[in-house]
Amino acid sequence: MRILVVNPNTTASMTAKIGEAARAVAAPGTEIIALDPGHGPVSIEGHYDAAFALPGLLDCVRQGEAEGVDGFVVACFDDPGIGACREVATGPVVGICEAAMVAAAMIASSFSVVTTLPRAIPVIEELAHRYGMERRLRRVRAAAIPVLDLEADAGAAAKVHAEVVRAIEEDRAEAVILGCAGMADLAASLGQRTGVPVIDGVGAAVKLVEALVGLGLRTSKAGGYANPLPKRYAGDLARHAFQSHDRN
Amino acid sequence: MRILVVNPNTTASMTAKIGEAARAVAAPGTEIIALDPGHGPVSIEGHYDAAFALPGLLDCVRQGEAEGVDGFVVACFDDPGIGACREVATGPVVGICEAAMVAAAMIASSFSVVTTLPRAIPVIEELAHRYGMERRLRRVRAAAIPVLDLEADAGAAAKVHAEVVRAIEEDRAEAVILGCAGMADLAASLGQRTGVPVIDGVGAAVKLVEALVGLGLRTSKAGGYANPLPKRYAGDLARHAFQSHDRN
Amino acid sequence: MRILVVNPNTTASMTAKIGEAARAVAAPGTEIIALDPGHGPVSIEGHYDAAFALPGLLDCVRQGEAEGVDGFVVACFDDPGIGACREVATGPVVGICEAAMVAAAMIASSFSVVTTLPRAIPVIEELAHRYGMERRLRRVRAAAIPVLDLEADAGAAAKVHAEVVRAIEEDRAEAVILGCAGMADLAASLGQRTGVPVIDGVGAAVKLVEALVGLGLRTSKAGGYANPLPKRYAGDLARHAFQSHDRN
Amino acid sequence: MRILVVNPNTTASMTAKIGEAARAVAAPGTEIIALDPGHGPVSIEGHYDAAFALPGLLDCVRQGEAEGVDGFVVACFDDPGIGACREVATGPVVGICEAAMVAAAMIASSFSVVTTLPRAIPVIEELAHRYGMERRLRRVRAAAIPVLDLEADAGAAAKVHAEVVRAIEEDRAEAVILGCAGMADLAASLGQRTGVPVIDGVGAAVKLVEALVGLGLRTSKAGGYANPLPKRYAGDLARHAFQSHDRN
Amino acid sequence: MRILVVNPNTTASMTAKIGEAARAVAAPGTEIIALDPGHGPVSIEGHYDAAFALPGLLDCVRQGEAEGVDGFVVACFDDPGIGACREVATGPVVGICEAAMVAAAMIASSFSVVTTLPRAIPVIEELAHRYGMERRLRRVRAAAIPVLDLEADAGAAAKVHAEVVRAIEEDRAEAVILGCAGMADLAASLGQRTGVPVIDGVGAAVKLVEALVGLGLRTSKAGGYANPLPKRYAGDLARHAFQSHDRN
Amino acid sequence: MRILVVNPNTTASMTAKIGEAARAVAAPGTEIIALDPGHGPVSIEGHYDAAFALPGLLDCVRQGEAEGVDGFVVACFDDPGIGACREVATGPVVGICEAAMVAAAMIASSFSVVTTLPRAIPVIEELAHRYGMERRLRRVRAAAIPVLDLEADAGAAAKVHAEVVRAIEEDRAEAVILGCAGMADLAASLGQRTGVPVIDGVGAAVKLVEALVGLGLRTSKAGGYANPLPKRYAGDLARHAFQSHDRN
Repeated sequence: MRILVVNPNTTASMTAKIGEAARAVAAPGTEIIALDPGHGPVSIEGHYDAAFALPGLLDCVRQGEAEGVDGFVVACFDDPGIGACREVATGPVVGICEAAMVAAAMIASSFSVVTTLPRAIPVIEELAHRYGMERRLRRVRAAAIPVLDLEADAGAAAKVHAEVVRAIEEDRAEAVILGCAGMADLAASLGQRTGVPVIDGVGAAVKLVEALVGLGLRTSKAGGYANPLPKRYAGDLARHAFQSHDRN
Repeated sequence: MRILVVNPNTTASMTAKIGEAARAVAAPGTEIIALDPGHGPVSIEGHYDAAFALPGLLDCVRQGEAEGVDGFVVACFDDPGIGACREVATGPVVGICEAAMVAAAMIASSFSVVTTLPRAIPVIEELAHRYGMERRLRRVRAAAIPVLDLEADAGAAAKVHAEVVRAIEEDRAEAVILGCAGMADLAASLGQRTGVPVIDGVGAAVKLVEALVGLGLRTSKAGGYANPLPKRYAGDLARHAFQSHDRN
Repeated sequence: MRILVVNPNTTASMTAKIGEAARAVAAPGTEIIALDPGHGPVSIEGHYDAAFALPGLLDCVRQGEAEGVDGFVVACFDDPGIGACREVATGPVVGICEAAMVAAAMIASSFSVVTTLPRAIPVIEELAHRYGMERRLRRVRAAAIPVLDLEADAGAAAKVHAEVVRAIEEDRAEAVILGCAGMADLAASLGQRTGVPVIDGVGAAVKLVEALVGLGLRTSKAGGYANPLPKRYAGDLARHAFQSHDRN
Repeated sequence: MRILVVNPNTTASMTAKIGEAARAVAAPGTEIIALDPGHGPVSIEGHYDAAFALPGLLDCVRQGEAEGVDGFVVACFDDPGIGACREVATGPVVGICEAAMVAAAMIASSFSVVTTLPRAIPVIEELAHRYGMERRLRRVRAAAIPVLDLEADAGAAAKVHAEVVRAIEEDRAEAVILGCAGMADLAASLGQRTGVPVIDGVGAAVKLVEALVGLGLRTSKAGGYANPLPKRYAGDLARHAFQSHDRN
Repeated sequence: MRILVVNPNTTASMTAKIGEAARAVAAPGTEIIALDPGHGPVSIEGHYDAAFALPGLLDCVRQGEAEGVDGFVVACFDDPGIGACREVATGPVVGICEAAMVAAAMIASSFSVVTTLPRAIPVIEELAHRYGMERRLRRVRAAAIPVLDLEADAGAAAKVHAEVVRAIEEDRAEAVILGCAGMADLAASLGQRTGVPVIDGVGAAVKLVEALVGLGLRTSKAGGYANPLPKRYAGDLARHAFQSHDRN
Repeated sequence: MRILVVNPNTTASMTAKIGEAARAVAAPGTEIIALDPGHGPVSIEGHYDAAFALPGLLDCVRQGEAEGVDGFVVACFDDPGIGACREVATGPVVGICEAAMVAAAMIASSFSVVTTLPRAIPVIEELAHRYGMERRLRRVRAAAIPVLDLEADAGAAAKVHAEVVRAIEEDRAEAVILGCAGMADLAASLGQRTGVPVIDGVGAAVKLVEALVGLGLRTSKAGGYANPLPKRYAGDLARHAFQSHDRN
């Protein structure tokens, strides 16, 4: 099985880290293709960045679709463009926030999320509400680290660790989710140090795509995720228009 | 007061109709600027189209912001990109789905929505849930009309009328919302024919922006709608990057 | 357009202040009629006071209806008797709690409310639940000021200010709503001092009524807000009975 | 134990019927005092009627309080003024809608409500939401009978029966609640005829008040139901003002 | 009327205390039969214990059913096996968590629960959600006392008292529920000392069963609580199989 | 990896079918152990049967735990005893209802469930509410087939097929879940015939356990799923008591 893991930002070192995290958990028969779009924001911190990550993300998904990959992971914790990806995709598409929350809910009664910047808090609260997880979500905490500092700042891991500990002690969270794809490398060691499950969404999404593909399930085309209707896109974006021959 | 009403698709006749609907309800001192981006999908029918409407929509909002308009209407019933627009905007930004539901909830105990295609139904149900309106929403109904047929098809108005009548009789809806900006011209006559309030989101959003601007309220920059962080955007999308001098 | 703003308590100085707040935001063509009923509680602090504010409130609304006003504001943050007013009214009726929450939700991801006495907290929480706003409401805070002390107590404004600051810092509220019509004069200066939107419900409701009237929307008579049925009221309250000739 | 059952409308025959229904289920040691206020609407059909039932209802409760009754039933299915009554009362106050839903939820997974007029449907749906019962409520059905026709119309019982049968067959309701105090006499026979529990709120509320009084529980004065604050009421309503010596 | 109060654990001293609490509130004509199954866990602290309390609990209920008792109380705050008991029972079955929350909601706007061990917190939060009480539940607090220490530890009552005070002061709870049948003897004195209603579920459940029986209501057999289907149970559990002649 | 799939009923042919369905989707390195307890109900149709399935189910899980299996599937659509199993288990425990709903929600906007008997409908609705899936669940439908007739009745598959078609056409469900482990063999062919994803919970749960184990996630012991406390169980059930040396 081939899974395309899209990093919707354009920071290659982060794409590499995400690919590594994905491969670390992938089943023997799974090939992970880690991709970033090459155009778009270097990091996604807020709705505006997320909006401009979509053209690149969807390019990647269409490319994967053309190459017949079996499923897709969108490796940004805001779960941007999942609906659009599902319209294009034949196989399943899983976002890392949804994946992490689903995994947490099956091994713990409640969880907290530790993310990067405070501005991400309402976004993640809204996602929890959309996924029916608001009751299980104790609190979203921000470690006050810009996304790219996760790559660069030697102290970042310590800040995340401190916030994970607060989630366990103050929120009484039974599990902690790391709320940024750039934290994927921290989950295992944080889980060991705290004795509480610490969940990385990238890994979780890879395993859920494997699960869905393994079940023979594809994205339903009977309603909200039906293929885009063929039509003209004007101007610069013309090449992005979905065409009849794109249909799956 | 100047309000920028963005039609996020690129069909000029629809932009004209939307502008007309906006001007029909605007207060004497309000100048309506109706704009479409010139690049992007000719109609928005699903998540994929909505994703590719965002670059153009945000271009328009940034342009309006540069020109100092007082507030913004996003004239597509999927309320695409509202969070991103709010990050960029100094003044208020209102989507037509949220506006219509807010208006309906203040004049009726319950409402139904009549939209274009069945694929829009889950999108609108999700928005109702996000806005805390799921209890008041009796049902989302599709008249089975592609968006652009609203312009072209002589029978479209009759189909919408039939579905509005069903909403009143079968759903016991006390008000009916027209779930597409392209239906803006039908609301008044449908309201008169049925004796039940029929609400057009374009008009509703214009009046709500006028209200918020009149109150001196601007989009809060204290959390989820803070200005985008200045950063580099790679490739084709470089020009869209938010810069320090863009800050409001 | 003429809007009747009813202060449901009988403290004339508060009616004057409310009228002033309403006129401060009203559009050029809007005439504000600020009225209090002359009979009933001098302030509304709890369910019992609210119950005895209803006869006077409804007298005012029926009087406004007879005079053909275009819409109504109920200027008490408990939103008392809104359903009854809507049954009587032809035009729209908006309560200041609902109006403030609707305004807040369009410019901020979350908000807190600062009200007068602790006993108001569960009332406002219940309203937030009724309006589908419980997810956006961070917290209701009481400044521990009796309503009429807002008129009399030189220190009241400072107490409200302190609580607004706590809402921003402790609750991470992106906007703050002032939870009493008697605080209407404080909103603008508090917004300026804190840099966060501070919302007064009286102003918000006036602008929302202007918006709804401007849209040509009237209260739906197709269900829960149909005109009262003509019938006999016994005893002291006989004159309040709705009659066939009252129908709109 | 003495329980005051207030019929908030002024139709003496209905008060008698309600008293009878209350006595039919009261425990041996319970004295039922059935009262109506003598002033106010002859029936409660909508929010406006309910508003004008409050002065009389609260007069009755204050009178009962002065006479030291142990608890109160408000015998109108809209549960009008419950909060205000609870502020005044030392003992527990139970509304018949809340009581019926609580009883239904302990003997059935789901229930429907059969009420009088369609205009009551959104009121009851709103109450179900307030009480956390929206999931268990299958549907509110109206038998299209004005309240006072329950007294007068020979065919009323048959209409109610027909609607109860529809609730069982079409809604798959496991229990049916009669949504009007004026239907109190029909519950037992309908339960027998259909083989499904049919619940009358008057009886349910009497038994719940007995239960709460028997537990030694009184209305909490620690928050939302604290005694009204002593203050002046202006004009006609002056005599209704709560005074320091009224405190319990 | 005879009510069977089942203590689903096997600690006789606790059964005695529960029986005493039940008798203390029972009406003159009510006979309380307090029973424990003789086999199963000595205390219920978590899901596993609760699972092994079910065979004994259901034995007791079937025995009560055979003897024609009128109703049942399940005296463990996790409300274990209520659905199963309702399938077997002709009369009503009430759990003490549901009973306590229902009672609290009728005398207070909000409540907190004080339970024994922290591991019970998510169980009780889940029950509150199931009963539609999540909005009224301020917080579940654990006094950190193993269940049987309530019998043995002289300091247990002081710890419960301290937590009740915190619930009132920190959570602003208007009522407090004692979240363990073993605390039944503490409610009255805690209520007196704090001046806030303190609710014991055992008493509440007894009174609610009396109420339902007094209304002539039986468990609905029209859906989710229909009698078990007669069938074979294999092995050790064969004797527990429900048979045709068991039907009510 | 070894996964223990427990059929909590005692019908060996169904255990075999479940084992087969599990093996059909298991990854190459996964060993499926399909087990039933040998004592308990031959089928689970309602709460009573589910209660008596728990001792056997927990025996199986403890046996698996002793043998060091990596994770557990509970193969009954009522998701009985999941919390208890999670207390005992080191690895993850997944129920087939939760698994199927999680899978459906990632490939479709909405789904319906087709189950066996009408009495299962409220049970499944309650589970959907517990899992935060009530918004996505269009309807639970019963094919009116006793569980064991799925084994015996030649017409059963046709009845299930008919109900799946109704779910697609009448409920507009974008995916359909088969609501009984005994239907596991029908999913693939129904999916092919209808063109809409049809989901079997057994397969879904196996793949989710594989996913969680593959992530190195174990059941959190930090709260609601901590190991049972060692204690004495009286009588027949003594051997089931959890002991210190059982701790993981």
